[in-house]
Amino acid sequence: MNEDQKNKLTVMIFGQQYKIVGNASSNYMRMIAGHVDDKMRQIAESNPRLDTTKIAVLTAVNIADEYFRLKEEYDELVKLLEE
Amino acid sequence: MNEDQKNKLTVMIFGQQYKIVGNASSNYMRMIAGHVDDKMRQIAESNPRLDTTKIAVLTAVNIADEYFRLKEEYDELVKLLEE
Repeated sequence: MNEDQKNKLTVMIFGQQYKIVGNASSNYMRMIAGHVDDKMRQIAESNPRLDTTKIAVLTAVNIADEYFRLKEEYDELVKLLEE
Repeated sequence: MNEDQKNKLTVMIFGQQYKIVGNASSNYMRMIAGHVDDKMRQIAESNPRLDTTKIAVLTAVNIADEYFRLKEEYDELVKLLEE
């Protein structure tokens, strides 16, 4: 993919429109937006009293947790490959 | 770590208190909250007109993007190890 070519996209997340810009393909960017939308809906369903800001922050916390867990596994694999 | 032992923690993210619950250590949970707080501040600085909800949603999108990029690299490593 051409790194200089920016894709601009409007996506819907939790009923709101967002303009996102990135080097990735439109499909990838839609997939990311869909992932965040799914997580927000899950968190909203389990915590019906939370406002949208809190739902979004807890979604970010949730995804960051997944990131750091995967990072730990990734680092272990890199170590294995280096041995 | 004992998987049954839940840690409850109050953390500050973007000036708001959040109660988070998890199996991970308090240090890990604070690190995750700090990561989200940092990202929100970065996005808020680059986009001063955004409200807190949009900042939080875009933070979640940003972290999800990092997750899926890492996932791709991780899957490639797994393939390499299987060969």
